Order: sequence, then C-alpha cells, then structure tokens
Amino acid sequence: MTFRDASAAEIDAVMQRAWQAFYIFRETTLKQRADLMRRIAAELEATGDELIRTAMRETNLPEARLRGERARTQFQLTSYADACEAGDWLEVRIDTATADQPDLRKWLVPVGPVVVFGASNFPLAYSTAGGDTASALAAGCPVIVKAHPAHAETSELVAGAIARAVRTEGLPASVFTHVHGAGVETGKNLVTHTHTRAVGFTGSYGGGKALFDWANQRKVPIPVFAEMGSINPVFLLPDRLRSGAKEVAMLLAGSITQGVGQFCTNPGLIIGIEGKELDLFVEELGTAIANAAPGTMLHPGIAKAYSEKREAALAQPDVATVAVSATRSGTNQGAPTLASATAGAFFRNPLLHQEVFGPYSLIIQCKNAGEMLEVVRRMEGQLTASLLATDRDIHEFAELVGSAGDICGRLVLNGVPTGVRVGLAMQHGGPFPATTDSRFTSVGADGILRWARPLCYQNWPDHLLPAALKNGNPLRIWRTVNNSMTRDPL
Amino acid sequence: MTFRDASAAEIDAVMQRAWQAFYIFRETTLKQRADLMRRIAAELEATGDELIRTAMRETNLPEARLRGERARTQFQLTSYADACEAGDWLEVRIDTATADQPDLRKWLVPVGPVVVFGASNFPLAYSTAGGDTASALAAGCPVIVKAHPAHAETSELVAGAIARAVRTEGLPASVFTHVHGAGVETGKNLVTHTHTRAVGFTGSYGGGKALFDWANQRKVPIPVFAEMGSINPVFLLPDRLRSGAKEVAMLLAGSITQGVGQFCTNPGLIIGIEGKELDLFVEELGTAIANAAPGTMLHPGIAKAYSEKREAALAQPDVATVAVSATRSGTNQGAPTLASATAGAFFRNPLLHQEVFGPYSLIIQCKNAGEMLEVVRRMEGQLTASLLATDRDIHEFAELVGSAGDICGRLVLNGVPTGVRVGLAMQHGGPFPATTDSRFTSVGADGILRWARPLCYQNWPDHLLPAALKNGNPLRIWRTVNNSMTRDPL
Repeated sequence: MTFRDASAAEIDAVMQRAWQAFYIFRETTLKQRADLMRRIAAELEATGDELIRTAMRETNLPEARLRGERARTQFQLTSYADACEAGDWLEVRIDTATADQPDLRKWLVPVGPVVVFGASNFPLAYSTAGGDTASALAAGCPVIVKAHPAHAETSELVAGAIARAVRTEGLPASVFTHVHGAGVETGKNLVTHTHTRAVGFTGSYGGGKALFDWANQRKVPIPVFAEMGSINPVFLLPDRLRSGAKEVAMLLAGSITQGVGQFCTNPGLIIGIEGKELDLFVEELGTAIANAAPGTMLHPGIAKAYSEKREAALAQPDVATVAVSATRSGTNQGAPTLASATAGAFFRNPLLHQEVFGPYSLIIQCKNAGEMLEVVRRMEGQLTASLLATDRDIHEFAELVGSAGDICGRLVLNGVPTGVRVGLAMQHGGPFPATTDSRFTSVGADGILRWARPLCYQNWPDHLLPAALKNGNPLRIWRTVNNSMTRDPL
Repeated sequence: MTFRDASAAEIDAVMQRAWQAFYIFRETTLKQRADLMRRIAAELEATGDELIRTAMRETNLPEARLRGERARTQFQLTSYADACEAGDWLEVRIDTATADQPDLRKWLVPVGPVVVFGASNFPLAYSTAGGDTASALAAGCPVIVKAHPAHAETSELVAGAIARAVRTEGLPASVFTHVHGAGVETGKNLVTHTHTRAVGFTGSYGGGKALFDWANQRKVPIPVFAEMGSINPVFLLPDRLRSGAKEVAMLLAGSITQGVGQFCTNPGLIIGIEGKELDLFVEELGTAIANAAPGTMLHPGIAKAYSEKREAALAQPDVATVAVSATRSGTNQGAPTLASATAGAFFRNPLLHQEVFGPYSLIIQCKNAGEMLEVVRRMEGQLTASLLATDRDIHEFAELVGSAGDICGRLVLNGVPTGVRVGLAMQHGGPFPATTDSRFTSVGADGILRWARPLCYQNWPDHLLPAALKNGNPLRIWRTVNNSMTRDPL
C-alpha cells in the first residue's frame, strides 16, 4: 500500500484545524487528558494481531519484540497518564502579595500544536502513539504525526486507534492528525507552519539537523527536540578488567548484537588501555561476535547503510577488523562486527567518531590514562556513557568520570547502555549532536516539559484563577508557596 | 575612560581559563556558591558612593533610582543564594531498582561557562552582577561578562567587587571574568567559542537575534536566553472602563512615564473598544501625558533612537497624536507622548507593532470585541499582557483572555506591567520575539534552570553518588522518589 504525500494546502488546513482544537483541548482537565491516554492504550491493545502482523511485514522485527514494544507503548501511555493526572509537572509556584509586591502565581501551559516525526527502529514506542505523542497530549497540545514512510501502514493502524480514542472521549478530531509524507517537503511544510509550536523527532543527524535549522530560521523560531543518534562510549577501566575481562566481554557482546544493533543506545565505541587484560577482553569479545548470527535489519535502506558505513569504517587507515560473524549474512542482514583502532587514529580521523547504525563496535586502544581522558574530551555529545569500573577505578579516574558526565545525559556504571527504563528519573537526551536540546528528555514523564512553558498570573483573585493556582489547591498537587514545597491549601 | 576591545586571542585565553575553572567550580557545594553570592552582595555594598556617582555619570539615572537598583541587585544575589542553598532547583528524581530495571537517579548539573551581556537600562540589576550572573553562579557555571559600553566604568567597579568576592572565598579567579568590547566582533567571538555553553542577554531585538543566530549556526549549537523588548499590550475592557476610566488612565500614565519609559515592561500599546468611556479615558490619559515632564534618557544614543522612532510612528498614516508633554524637552530628554490609531491601521502597518523605547504609548481603538480579539491574535510575543477588567469582563471576554495568555509570559489583571517582582513565581520571559526562549525566566530563582541540564546516574552504589542523590538525602532537599515528592531518606 502506498500513501500520497500531504500537499502544502492540506498541511495548512490540518494546522488551522489543530490550532482550533488547541483552544478546546488546552481547557481539558488533567483527568480528561489522562483518560484519553488510557483509552489510546486500550485501543492499541484492540488492534490485536493485525497490528503485529503489519509491523512484522514492514519492519522485519520479530513478533515477540513487537508484542513487547506494543506493551511498552501502552505502559508509556498509562504511566504518562498517571503523571499527567498527578499534576506535579505543572511546576506551580506561588508568591503571595506583600505590602508592596503583587501576588504572583506561575504554572506551565501547553505551547500549542506539536509535530511528531517517528523513528524507523521503534515503529510503536517511538512513533505514532509513542512517547512524543503521549507526552504532548499530556501537556494539552494537539499532535500532528507524520508517518514514517518505512512503516506507514503500521502508522495508519495506530493512528486509527488514536482517532477512535479521541472520538470516544468526546474531544475534537483534530486533537490528533495523521499525515503521510515520504518526501522532504511535507516535513518542511509542517515545521515551518505558523501554527506549529514545537517538534519531536527521532532519527538521523541529517534529518534532525534539517528540522532544527528550519525551525530556527522561521520568523518565530520554535523548539525542536530531535534525537539524532549516538555511539554510546563504554570505558573499560583497568581494575575492573583485571577482575573479569571475560564477564565484561559477554555483557558487551549481548548489548552490541541485541536487536541487530538497531538501538540509539547501542555501544558503538569501547575504550580501554593497552595491556594483557585488554587483549584478553578483545579476544573474548571477538569470539562472541564471531559466534553471533547476523539478523535481518529493519528495511533494505538500513541494511544497505549499515553495510556501506561498516565497510567504510573498516577501510580506514589504522582500523583493524577484530571479528565478524562467522555466519554468512542473508539478504538485508547485518553481520555483527568488531573493529579496533589506536587512540591516535581516533584523534586523527573524524569518521571514527560517527555512528555505524547496526551491530558494530570499535575498540579504541589507549596507551595510558592520559590518552583515555583525551578521547572522552574530544568526543561529541552522547545519549549515554558507560563505565565498567571498580570503586578503585572511579577514584583513580575521577577526571575521566567527570568528563564522561560532561558529554552525556546518562552515566551508566557497570552496565550497558541498551535498555531504556521508562521512568521519571530517566534522562534520554544528551549534548548535541546526540539531541538538539540536552535540557529535556524524550523518555519518562519529564518529557511532558518539552511541550509547555510558564505563564504567570499577577494580581488575579482566587475565583478567576485556574484550579492549579487556587488558594484551596483543589487538584491536591505539590506547589512551591512562598519558597516552600507544600500540598496544603493557602 | 575608554577600554580596549578584547581580541580574539584574549577571548580564547579567557575561555580556556574559564573552562579550567569550571572543573573546580562545579564541584563546590551549594553552600559555597551561596556564600560567594552573599559575599558579592556585601562587596557591592562596599562600593559605596563611588559606584553610584559613576553610574549617575554614565547613565543619567537619578541617585535614588541607582541606590534602589543596587539594593535590588543585592537582594537578587542573596535571594538566589538562598534558593541555591535550598537545593530544590536540582530537580532530583530517583527511581529505585526493581526486579528487572536498574536504579536511576537524575539531577541538574551546570552546563559550563556562561557569557553574559548586560542591559543598558539597568546598569546594576541586569548587568555585571545582575540576575544572569547570579543565577549562573548558583548553577555552578563560571561567568564571563562583556561590559555594556554605555556604562563600562560602572561595570569595571562591579567586576572588581565580584573579583574580590571570588578571591575572598578562595575560588579560582576565572570563575568570573570581565571583558570589554564596544564592537560586534567581541560578542561574536565570545558566543562562538567552543567552551561557551550558554548566553544571557538583555537588549535590543537586533542584538539578541544576532547572538541567537550565531549560537545556532555553531557546530555545536548552544542556548541563548535573550530578552529583546516588548510593547506590553494593555487591554481596556468595557465594564472596567465604565466603572472608572479616569482611575485607569492615571494608573497607566504613571506606568508609561516611569523612569522615562525605559523599562522592558513599559506599556507601549493600549487597546480599547470605541465609545464614550474610551473617549473619556483617552482624554484623561492625554491630559496626564501632557502634564508629565520630559526626563533625561540613559545616553544620547537612546534619546536619539526614541526621538526618531517616535517621529516615525507619529508620521504613519492613520496615526493621530493625542498628547505630548507640554514641557519643552532638553538635550537627551524624552518627551512623554500618546498616540492613537484604529485597529485597521494596526492590522495594515507592521511598524505599529514595534517598540518605541521610551515614554510613548499608542492607543488602538477597536470597533468591537471581535476586532479586539483579532488585535491580540495578530500580535507578536510579549513579556507581559495586562487586562483592566471586572469579573464580568473576564467572563464575557474569555477568548480574549485566553489569547492574551498565548502571547505573553505574565498576565497582569488590574495592574500595570512595570514593576517586576523578584521571586520564584515571576515569569520574565515570553514568546519570541520578546525572548528567544519562553520556557525560561530571567528574573526569579527559576532563572538558575537556564544554566543546567539533567544528568542521570544509572546503577551507581550509594557511596559513589553525589550528595544530592544519596539514599540518606544529606542535603535535606525535596526529591521525587518513585514518583512521590519527599524529603525523607530512602
């Protein structure tokens, strides 16, 4: 099935209707928004096997993974619904009047229609009804999703489920709109429309950066929250390697090859200090990679890109191939691959800093601790950085630990970066170019904050204030009143 | 006294040292940062009459105003110090481990060196030791201030006070750096330096937008928090006018002429509906403006710009001069001026949407409520919007009230926009082009959030975590633990 790209005129009509829907949707209570999100979760469940079959056909992802991903998507919707309803995200601050100062009450209000571009690698959890959509609805923003062309039919089915939920909850249809657009114009028309107030994106650096530039070049710039990939460095510290190089190798082998390496948190760079423990680690990890079977990738374009980028990386001077899957790759399959280079090569060659999206990882061998510190300090922004380290390592490599924190949003100790827990304490967002705005997360209920801004009411009488700001605190939310956190009424 | 612009090489050296200072400064406790800010406040006090005399000479501001502004600056420093030390701004979230999910703990960390460009109209409170500097120090960021050339000597004196405080508190000198630069190159070199991680600015649209564009065109874009002016619309609703047009006129006359109109919150646009009450209001306000004396403006450049922009506005078709100060203006003085135009003229002529910085206001006369709604919906982003309204007006003009909230950061009811209370509930920042980022405030302790980003620790043992994230909660701060707000230890 193919879909026609939305025209500029169609997008204008969509955005006009979304803006009208905004006037109504922002007035809904937190309970109404939470009910909508829970209803979407139920409608997703009701898509049954048809959704799974369609997604399997479009993405090559296995059934169990897709069933798990649908469950994750439902969990996101219901957990963000709970957070929405709890209302603490409204960040209410109240400074009551004094003899010479007016009463001030501030809360967060929705920014307006939000355009969402879903990810190719998560057709459900980071797509049409994914975290961006869920969190924008929680904030009170209408959502316009541009279907990912690689799984447009899956997106249609999910959009149908959302539309049914919107209708059942008695909300304006344009609270949610689904458009198609395989070409670049559709995206540009959406981002540059005057009624678009924010953008969520998960995908490549090229795609995200284009949206970011269009958004900043508007007459009225708007925020773009683009997650654009990451090589997720893993630092192997010497005391940890001494106490179990093989165990660390097994842990990383699983993370590198999981889901054919098609995660934004895949560990693409492993940094260690030369020596016999590192040699042992490389040998063990190489064996594991050679023993790992190739897997079918999401679609031919991704398989082709993996093959080309992997070959380009392996062809660089000073890059050695350590291991490749011993199993021959079939059509559209990605072969697990491990390579190695010196820190000097990493310093000289910018290509070694780039993501190879798939089951590929590059080991950087440093001469000493100083070189390892230099590697992290020259690295671009990342979603995650991981340390495999004993307590002694953490103390001895304090500078490295500090600098690893500088370049990432999530600092993993003795674990792997893959596996992104959905929770309030998650930070899924890191310094540019991992994302365009490291101050916000795209996973966890704090993601709601991307779609809201503060509005302060000065000198309003209680009976005219929104419920969240009233003296009596009818919503029973946490508020900062005269600099003290409280749930008490005034 | 004149100062030489810092060269590109000097700026590079400054930023290198600031980056080194960042490694040390970010490790300071909240108490140490608060102590520094309180010490700066004390050192400001110790600048005594010399600071006041210098600022009077450079800015033409009267002594009482400057003494008041210094006191405000000290109050900002000490109140942000209190907020810094209380630590709630760290936004700690903890999700403890479950059977299949890792322990996650997130807090805010400083972004790195911050470049601050002070305002011409507040040589103390929005300049060298102003809110941007105070909040960035609270976050743990070294600050580099580029002195405003219109009050560079005042800036030198304040910088000396800050440097003494930094020394007394035993911190690296490069926690604070003061540079001069009357030309555009200095600013550009500062904003585009790789070690600069964020920018604060208060000034013109042209200046702020240039910084914003440079920052976004960097290889690694950085956030710019620029406050760029506002015309602060005031909506006169009919029931309120009926019950006291003269009282409303007196209130606005004071706000328009206060400080020779040289506030970013000066009410530059007044919107009413045609009728005899509006006629009475215009007459009363006109009389008050005619009776108001001209005042000396900050410097010749500002007086010249006021004179030119005011004349250009008055020369527009369909703009009528209602009243001008009856007192003849002296050198560099700004004459209080009131003009009037129809809503139709406002729709046709973009120049009527532009700020005339000084004691000038334009009344927009609408034919009916529909036209008034259209006026607000066509208006650019503003720091504030004000409603002069009875309860009945608020209910009858619900759409207008909603749309007024859409375009501003602070919605004032039955008051004037001038007078910006320093407190946590203040929102001083509005939709573009009022500021470049409406999600943040430049007044109040929430301004600290501009200079921080979340960092999540995954799977770290308690003894290696920062104090804010430890089980025992030794800082006694509010934290969200497993989705519940608490100050209890885990």
